[in-house]
Amino acid sequence: MAEWIEEYTYDYYAAKYRAKAKLFSEQSPYQLIEIYDVEKFGKMLVHDGCVMITEWDEFIYHEMIAHVPLFVHPHPRRVLVIGGGDGGTVREILRHPLVERVVLAEIDAVVVRAAKEFFPAVSFGLDDPRCDVRICDGVRFVQETEERFDIVIVDSTDPVGPAEPLFDTSFYADVQRILTRNGICVAQAESPHYYEDIQAHMLKNQSDIFDTVAMYYFVNLTYPGGFWCFSFASKGVSPTEGLNIARIDSRPFTTRYYNAAIHQAAFVLPEFLRQRVADILRK
Amino acid sequence: MAEWIEEYTYDYYAAKYRAKAKLFSEQSPYQLIEIYDVEKFGKMLVHDGCVMITEWDEFIYHEMIAHVPLFVHPHPRRVLVIGGGDGGTVREILRHPLVERVVLAEIDAVVVRAAKEFFPAVSFGLDDPRCDVRICDGVRFVQETEERFDIVIVDSTDPVGPAEPLFDTSFYADVQRILTRNGICVAQAESPHYYEDIQAHMLKNQSDIFDTVAMYYFVNLTYPGGFWCFSFASKGVSPTEGLNIARIDSRPFTTRYYNAAIHQAAFVLPEFLRQRVADILRK
Repeated sequence: MAEWIEEYTYDYYAAKYRAKAKLFSEQSPYQLIEIYDVEKFGKMLVHDGCVMITEWDEFIYHEMIAHVPLFVHPHPRRVLVIGGGDGGTVREILRHPLVERVVLAEIDAVVVRAAKEFFPAVSFGLDDPRCDVRICDGVRFVQETEERFDIVIVDSTDPVGPAEPLFDTSFYADVQRILTRNGICVAQAESPHYYEDIQAHMLKNQSDIFDTVAMYYFVNLTYPGGFWCFSFASKGVSPTEGLNIARIDSRPFTTRYYNAAIHQAAFVLPEFLRQRVADILRK
Repeated sequence: MAEWIEEYTYDYYAAKYRAKAKLFSEQSPYQLIEIYDVEKFGKMLVHDGCVMITEWDEFIYHEMIAHVPLFVHPHPRRVLVIGGGDGGTVREILRHPLVERVVLAEIDAVVVRAAKEFFPAVSFGLDDPRCDVRICDGVRFVQETEERFDIVIVDSTDPVGPAEPLFDTSFYADVQRILTRNGICVAQAESPHYYEDIQAHMLKNQSDIFDTVAMYYFVNLTYPGGFWCFSFASKGVSPTEGLNIARIDSRPFTTRYYNAAIHQAAFVLPEFLRQRVADILRK
């Protein structure tokens, strides 16, 4: 096999990757899950035609979704991940020695099974004794759980299909309820160029619930436009003010994208986006 | 017409855009120049199959190549642009009231002519009385000119074909010679993911000539990987230390990407790149 796989953004843009082999394909109850071996990018996980991760660049997304809240929180012990069945976010969380327990609430068992088989360097944290993998609906999990978490990370696909309720006010209200006093919620927040409406909806909903809402970004190779956001919501703790730089600089693990300066710079938004976010949060 | 135009990066990645019409096509002595009307992105300038600018996102590249050196230099009066025949960089430079004269040294007359016809909102600065458009080889221009400049901006295509000598030590030595005391040279510096070797070559060559060399980045929608760099070289002036924030905040024009915080954050590199640049500059 040597064929091009294409990922479309609306009907006017597409990225093409040269696949050497299709390694896996299964229609789960939620989505079509495919794994390809792709020239240069390595193995690539695709859900319903959308690139989720590749071996080349997954470190960027996973470091930035995990280390920002983990280094903001003064003492992160219990973390909930909603989605993220490939395990990359859990892997980064478990690098923090303070973390005692991670619950992963992933709706799709096929993602977890495929990641364990084809992405061992991404998924190995799922087998860590501190990690509790629950195959369940994350929305229902936050409604019903009696547990409390210091950090909730919403490592979701786009808000179509199973991930849609993860962008709603009632979901964020449940998240707020299960967060501890210094609690932080970080969520995948799309592209400011291609998904402006979703971003606005999401930030508005979060600002109805949380005292502090901000947005930060990373740049990877496989999401359309490269520039991609996470939302940061908390019960008051600032994502950058009072940041413990020494704690970051003395981290007992290496990173390839994240560092203390990137942590702070990631919250510095281009002027058009700074203005747009300020307008949304002012309302 | 409604066909896809494709831009290839090596033989393993491509971006596809849906073109509504081909507006212009001419083989100049240097390159094939095409202009398309593209769905959502607006008009798009393509050189030898590589996307140069689109109406949607050109502000990002042009603001970041111009305003960073213009706001670092304490009193920028004379600016040389090498390449940049579309005029977008000149447009941004001329927004600075201190600027008295801009020389544009563009090798390809067809680029200037096509930009004036199809991209008036980008190219209008080329008709400004302060702008002196020279159709000439920029390498020879810097070798021969008796003029001195406060800032030299190398707004070049990739180092294949006519732009290749723009990445060499002898070129930078000539640039250094024609710069005034606080002189700054900013140059298009490629992708850290796809053109690591070119970046290393370029930074090494610049550091042989200039006292201060740094790298900064922007993220646009149409360069492969989104994350794209400029090099910053100077006779000693720092790109961020002592930056006059008040002067930026009171700028007499609006920007859509650039602001004082972005100026500083643009020099904060992801860990893999920070380490790589430090290693290159240490040698």
